[in-house]
Amino acid sequence: MTKADAREPSTGWFEGKAFVFPVRIYYEDTDLSGVVYHAGYLRFMERGRSEFLRAAGLRHQGMLEAEEPLVWAVRRLTIDYAKPARVDEAVTVKTEVREVTGVRMRLRQSLWRGSDRLTEAEVEVCVITLEGRPRRIPSPIAAALQAFLED
Amino acid sequence: MTKADAREPSTGWFEGKAFVFPVRIYYEDTDLSGVVYHAGYLRFMERGRSEFLRAAGLRHQGMLEAEEPLVWAVRRLTIDYAKPARVDEAVTVKTEVREVTGVRMRLRQSLWRGSDRLTEAEVEVCVITLEGRPRRIPSPIAAALQAFLED
Amino acid sequence: MTKADAREPSTGWFEGKAFVFPVRIYYEDTDLSGVVYHAGYLRFMERGRSEFLRAAGLRHQGMLEAEEPLVWAVRRLTIDYAKPARVDEAVTVKTEVREVTGVRMRLRQSLWRGSDRLTEAEVEVCVITLEGRPRRIPSPIAAALQAFLED
Amino acid sequence: MTKADAREPSTGWFEGKAFVFPVRIYYEDTDLSGVVYHAGYLRFMERGRSEFLRAAGLRHQGMLEAEEPLVWAVRRLTIDYAKPARVDEAVTVKTEVREVTGVRMRLRQSLWRGSDRLTEAEVEVCVITLEGRPRRIPSPIAAALQAFLED
Repeated sequence: MTKADAREPSTGWFEGKAFVFPVRIYYEDTDLSGVVYHAGYLRFMERGRSEFLRAAGLRHQGMLEAEEPLVWAVRRLTIDYAKPARVDEAVTVKTEVREVTGVRMRLRQSLWRGSDRLTEAEVEVCVITLEGRPRRIPSPIAAALQAFLED
Repeated sequence: MTKADAREPSTGWFEGKAFVFPVRIYYEDTDLSGVVYHAGYLRFMERGRSEFLRAAGLRHQGMLEAEEPLVWAVRRLTIDYAKPARVDEAVTVKTEVREVTGVRMRLRQSLWRGSDRLTEAEVEVCVITLEGRPRRIPSPIAAALQAFLED
Repeated sequence: MTKADAREPSTGWFEGKAFVFPVRIYYEDTDLSGVVYHAGYLRFMERGRSEFLRAAGLRHQGMLEAEEPLVWAVRRLTIDYAKPARVDEAVTVKTEVREVTGVRMRLRQSLWRGSDRLTEAEVEVCVITLEGRPRRIPSPIAAALQAFLED
Repeated sequence: MTKADAREPSTGWFEGKAFVFPVRIYYEDTDLSGVVYHAGYLRFMERGRSEFLRAAGLRHQGMLEAEEPLVWAVRRLTIDYAKPARVDEAVTVKTEVREVTGVRMRLRQSLWRGSDRLTEAEVEVCVITLEGRPRRIPSPIAAALQAFLED
């Protein structure tokens, strides 16, 4: 793969300023209750955020290759489990930016099966070094994210 | 293993009415940021709840072997990530029961490295069938859980 | 989602009799070494098998909804890790059927980044009940799988 | 936690030169088939290796804090799934060193429920940098591991 491949367009799409990303449910996601394990939904939400960032031109590798390598970290998360997802199902993760400041981004994320909302989450993320030290969101990134803020 | 083995005492312990369970951090728990992946903490919290229930004599297998098999399901969860845990570290999950009603249990759970609180969560769980239908918490179980309610 | 949606075409494709399925690498897949955690590749292989089965019209839900619910189980697996995959990368899982008998299917699976083979696995799967009892591969399924056998 | 805590003794034990480590099965480990997800056994094996190394005084953090940070990586793995493990069960991982050379260690690992062997694996591990470059096993570590070689 060339570096260009990593920048290839996400398989998700924008609906207005919200980013929608399709996820398929596999065995790995389920537990003995027959539905998705509750922590699995956080992985889907994270994929939604990563794909939103990629679609916005803000790849993880870019931040990791900076002079001081940086990563996104979840700071706080609230999740509401309304209905379960099951193996084989095709669901979508919807990601909406609620707030971007110099030190954090707040998002609303939800998981949908067609028009059925299965889970909903509020997620606050920040930027840290690989040693875990907090950093400001790099200005070009914060500026780029402003464009996706809900009205 | 005989069935008795599954009922062997947990490796955790009670401190007053709170249940404390030790967890070791492995490669599997970390991500490229060098610390525990944010969804991994939910797995630790779930281990803490399972071990609390085992210590209280309320094993999952007991509910699964009932005439109508039942499982616990997380209904809502809020988690605050204050400090990260790293590979090799020995941490503890503290589980405290805040409320038990006929249909739900609310717990406060926290992850500690010595006297350092790393994450804190509020978790609401309920009981469902393997088809995902909500059920009341079986009365003997709800009654047994009352004994662990914080004052 | 209607039931029809679960039967929607896979995002993978056939190259001859081999099935190729794209996978994106996320934070959840990596560990502190900066690359994909070794057990994560097994999840990618399982996605490849599930998507191959879906593309062949043989969904998990179909087997689960049979009179005696059945699931696929891995019986034996050998995996060779040649080169690592990293976050953000777009890779593909290639799935080739080597043998189908009444009681097992043997596959060769490999993970590719462009023309670079990263890992290669031999996987033997069988069919079991939800109680873990071995069953023959249902005849219509075994027959359908024959069509994908390598020459 | 002080650094000393990370060096606290493992909860496992030696039986001759084999290292035995107890693992409890949780919801997180299972899938919809009701038993442990096949990739989950690799996580248990990795815990067994990590705890063996800790018991041998060879912690991951020690290698990570070296001038050139190093990590163990799995190079090749064969696993045989004979019987499944279920939620709540107490199982043990047995780790035996088969070969130690300058560039690799080969282990035999198995999962037991009492005297029932559930899975068995052959695992080959090597040492790499955080950039993925292969390195020799540091001499003091290779020397220490020799003591655990099967006769």
